[in-house]
Amino acid sequence: MKKAIFSTEISLLRSTMQRLLRRRAHTNISKILRKTHQADVALIMRSLSQYDQKKIFSLCPTSLHKARLLEELDDSLIEKVLEHESEKSISKIFRYLDTNDQATIIGMFPESKQQEILTKIEVDDKDDVEEIMSYPDDSAGSVMTKETFTLNQNTTVKESIKKLQSFPENDKIFYLYVLDNKEKLVGVVSLRTLVTSKNSKKLKEIMIKDIQAASTSTDQEEVAKKVAQYNYLALPVVNRQNKFLGIVTIDDVVDIIREEASEDFLQMAGVGKDREILLKSPIENAQSRAPWILASLIGGICAAGIISYFNSLLEQIIVLAAFIPVIIGVGGNVGTQSSTIVVRGLATGRVDAANTFPLILKELLVGSILGVAYGLVVGFTAEYITGIDMSNLGLVIGLSIFCSMTIATAVGASVPIVLKKLGFDPAISTGPFVTTAIDIIGVALYFVIASTILIN
Amino acid sequence: MKKAIFSTEISLLRSTMQRLLRRRAHTNISKILRKTHQADVALIMRSLSQYDQKKIFSLCPTSLHKARLLEELDDSLIEKVLEHESEKSISKIFRYLDTNDQATIIGMFPESKQQEILTKIEVDDKDDVEEIMSYPDDSAGSVMTKETFTLNQNTTVKESIKKLQSFPENDKIFYLYVLDNKEKLVGVVSLRTLVTSKNSKKLKEIMIKDIQAASTSTDQEEVAKKVAQYNYLALPVVNRQNKFLGIVTIDDVVDIIREEASEDFLQMAGVGKDREILLKSPIENAQSRAPWILASLIGGICAAGIISYFNSLLEQIIVLAAFIPVIIGVGGNVGTQSSTIVVRGLATGRVDAANTFPLILKELLVGSILGVAYGLVVGFTAEYITGIDMSNLGLVIGLSIFCSMTIATAVGASVPIVLKKLGFDPAISTGPFVTTAIDIIGVALYFVIASTILIN
Repeated sequence: MKKAIFSTEISLLRSTMQRLLRRRAHTNISKILRKTHQADVALIMRSLSQYDQKKIFSLCPTSLHKARLLEELDDSLIEKVLEHESEKSISKIFRYLDTNDQATIIGMFPESKQQEILTKIEVDDKDDVEEIMSYPDDSAGSVMTKETFTLNQNTTVKESIKKLQSFPENDKIFYLYVLDNKEKLVGVVSLRTLVTSKNSKKLKEIMIKDIQAASTSTDQEEVAKKVAQYNYLALPVVNRQNKFLGIVTIDDVVDIIREEASEDFLQMAGVGKDREILLKSPIENAQSRAPWILASLIGGICAAGIISYFNSLLEQIIVLAAFIPVIIGVGGNVGTQSSTIVVRGLATGRVDAANTFPLILKELLVGSILGVAYGLVVGFTAEYITGIDMSNLGLVIGLSIFCSMTIATAVGASVPIVLKKLGFDPAISTGPFVTTAIDIIGVALYFVIASTILIN
Repeated sequence: MKKAIFSTEISLLRSTMQRLLRRRAHTNISKILRKTHQADVALIMRSLSQYDQKKIFSLCPTSLHKARLLEELDDSLIEKVLEHESEKSISKIFRYLDTNDQATIIGMFPESKQQEILTKIEVDDKDDVEEIMSYPDDSAGSVMTKETFTLNQNTTVKESIKKLQSFPENDKIFYLYVLDNKEKLVGVVSLRTLVTSKNSKKLKEIMIKDIQAASTSTDQEEVAKKVAQYNYLALPVVNRQNKFLGIVTIDDVVDIIREEASEDFLQMAGVGKDREILLKSPIENAQSRAPWILASLIGGICAAGIISYFNSLLEQIIVLAAFIPVIIGVGGNVGTQSSTIVVRGLATGRVDAANTFPLILKELLVGSILGVAYGLVVGFTAEYITGIDMSNLGLVIGLSIFCSMTIATAVGASVPIVLKKLGFDPAISTGPFVTTAIDIIGVALYFVIASTILIN
C-alpha cells in the first residue's frame, strides 16, 4: 500500500505539474513522479495536452514506474503515450505487467506491430498473452489473470507453504487452486486454512471441492454479478474440459462493475458506449451522439406529419397546439422512469427476464394511477390556463394525458425486455427509442381523441 | 465457497419451491434450504408472496442458516420476515451476524424494540453495534466491519501467526492492522508478508507505515472510489485521534458501487432513490414517481402558457404547431446526453468539479455542431414535409433547432454541476429538471424566432 493523496490534493498536484511542465523542470517532475501514486498521475493526465501527457510518461524514472502508470491509464491515453516508444522499450516495460495487461495493450496496436512486440516479450509470458488475446472482448477469458497460485492435489501443506513463500509478491492471492494430474480444477484452499492445517496433510484432504467456475466465454458482466452475489474474492476460469486457465479477481470485478454501469448510463442516454467520451474532441463527440439524435429527429418529423394531417382540426381549435408539449412531456418522463427501472433491474438481476408479464402489468397500473391523477389535475385546470371557455376541452386533455401516461409505462417497460430477448443490450438507446416512440404515440392519440370528442 | 447454482437453475429452484409451498411439504423445503446458497434463496424470495417469504424464513433449519439468509435479503424483506420473531430468537440469530449487520437490522426496528434486542445480544458485541448505529447513514462508520485482525506493533511474527490461527474463520482478512499502545493505527502487514518474514521480527519492523484511512464520517461513495482507484482490498476507518475503529472491505465496496449506481440511475430518471422500488406496490410506486412527473407537468403548463401567448401568430401560420415536438424532442435528447455524461463523470471522478468551464464550453460546441447539422437537415426538408410553400419557414425551423440544441447542451451540462456545488446529489432529478427546462426554453425560442422572422 503506497500512500495515496487525498482528492483535495489532486488539484494541487495538477497545478504543480502544469507549472513544472511550462518551466520544463524535468528533474523536479521525475522526483514528483517517483513519490506519487500512479493512480493519481493517471487522473491528472486526463486534463493535460497530448504533448504533456507524452512528456510525463517519458519522465517516469524507471520502466517499473511506466508499467504501473500504464495499469492506471485510460485506453485512449495508453495508445497515445506508447505511440513513439520503441519495441525494445515496450518489452522492457512489459516485464512488470501481468499477462492480462500485456494482452490488452498489445491488442491496441496494428497487427504488424503486435507480432514485433510479441517476439520481444518473455517466452513464458508469450503463450499466456496470445491465449488471452484469442478470447472475445469482455469475456471471462479476456479479463482473467494468469498469475495464480496453483498446486497439485497431492502436495502436502508443508510443501505448499514453502511454495507460497517463494511465489512472487502479490497481495491478490486469495486462494490456492488445487489441480489434478491433468491440470483440471478439483478444489480450492484458503490461505488461512493452509496456515492452520497440519503440515503432513495433503491438499486434497483439506480443499473445498464444491466450486463454481466461469468458462472462457462467460460475459464479464455475468462474472461480476456472480462475484457480487456470492461474495467471492475471485472466480476461477476453466475450459470445456474443466482445465484451470486463470482467475478473475474481485479488484477487477470492481472495475468491471463501474465500467458496465458507465456504459449503461451512456447508452441509455444515447451517447454510444465509449466511457472515455470526455477525452474525445467535440467532433468525435458529436459523431458518436449524432445517430441517437437522428432517431428522435425522425420521430419528431413523424409527429409533424401527424399534426399536419390534423391541420383543419387545429385551425378550428388552435388552443390544442398549446398542450402538445405537456402531453408528450409527461408521457416521455413516465416512460423513461419505467424503462430505467427495467434496464437497471435486468442489469442487477432484480428483473427476471423469464417472468416479465407481471412487471409490465404493474408498470401499466402505475401509469394509469399517475394518469388518472394528473389527467384530472390538468384537465380541470386546462380551461382556466387558456382562458378559453370550451366544453369538453378539459376532457380531451385529461383523457389524452391519461392514455399517454398509461401507454408510456407499457412501452417503457417493454422495450428493454424485447431488446434483451432479441439478444441486444437492453440499455442500447432505450432512452431515445422510448421517448421517440412515446412522442409519436402521444401526439397521435391526442389528435384522435380531440377529433373524436370535439368534432362530433 | 459453497457451491452456488447457475442462473438457468434459478427458475427451476423457484418453481420447485413454489410447488412445495403449495403442497406444504415443509420437510422437503427445509432440506432444500440446507443445501442451497442463501444468495439464491434470497433471489427467489423476491418473487414470492409475503406469506411464503415468512414461511421460508421460518423453515430455515438452524439459526445459522437464518443469519446467512438475512445477510443476503433486501432490507424491506428483512423487516417483514423478522416482524413476528421473538427477541430471543432474534438474539440467537444475531450470534452469527457480524456487528455491522446486527446494527443495520436493529436500526430497522422502532426504538423501543431496539433497546429490547440490544439488551439480549452478546455483551462484547453490544458496544460495537451501538457505535456503528451512532454514525450517519452511508458513512464509512456505518458500513465498516469491526471484525478485524489487529495486533500491537511490538508483537513478534511468531506470536502473530499463532494469533491468526486462533482467530475465527474469516476469508475477508486481507491485512493485519498494526496499532500502538494507544490503539492508534501505525501500520499494516499483508498476510503473505507475515508468513514469509522471520519469526523473531516484530511487526513494527515489517509493517508498511504509509497508509490511507477514511474517517467515520467519510461518505461511503468516497470510500468506494478510493478502493477502486487505488486497488485496495480494504480501507481502515479511524477517528480524529487516528484511533483504529474498523475496516471497509472490498466485497462491501462491490455492493456500495452497485447500490450507488442503481440510485443514480433511478434518480436521474426521477424515480426517487429506492433501489427496492420493484418490490413496492403500484400505489407506493406511483407515490415515489409522482413528484418528478409533477415537475414536467408544471414545465408543460408553462410551455402551454407561452404557446397561448403567441396565439395570433399560430392562427396565421398554423404549420408552426407541427414542429413543436421535434424542436423540444431533439433539445431534450441532446440535453439528456450532456447531463448524463456529466453526472456519470462526477460519480466516477472523470469530471473535476473544480474545473468545469472547459467542459461546459465543449458541450456547447458539440451542441452547436449537432445543431448546425440537424438544423440544416430539418430546415431544408421542412417545406417539403408540410407541402407548404412559405419563404423563411425552413430558416425559422432550422435556426430554432440549432438554438434549442446549443442551449440544451449548456443547460444539460450545467445543471448537475450547479446541483453538485450547492451540495445536492447531481443525479437528483437531473433528468426531469433538464428536460423540463429545455422544453420551456425551446418553445419560447421557437416562437420568438418565428415571430421575428415571419412577421416582419
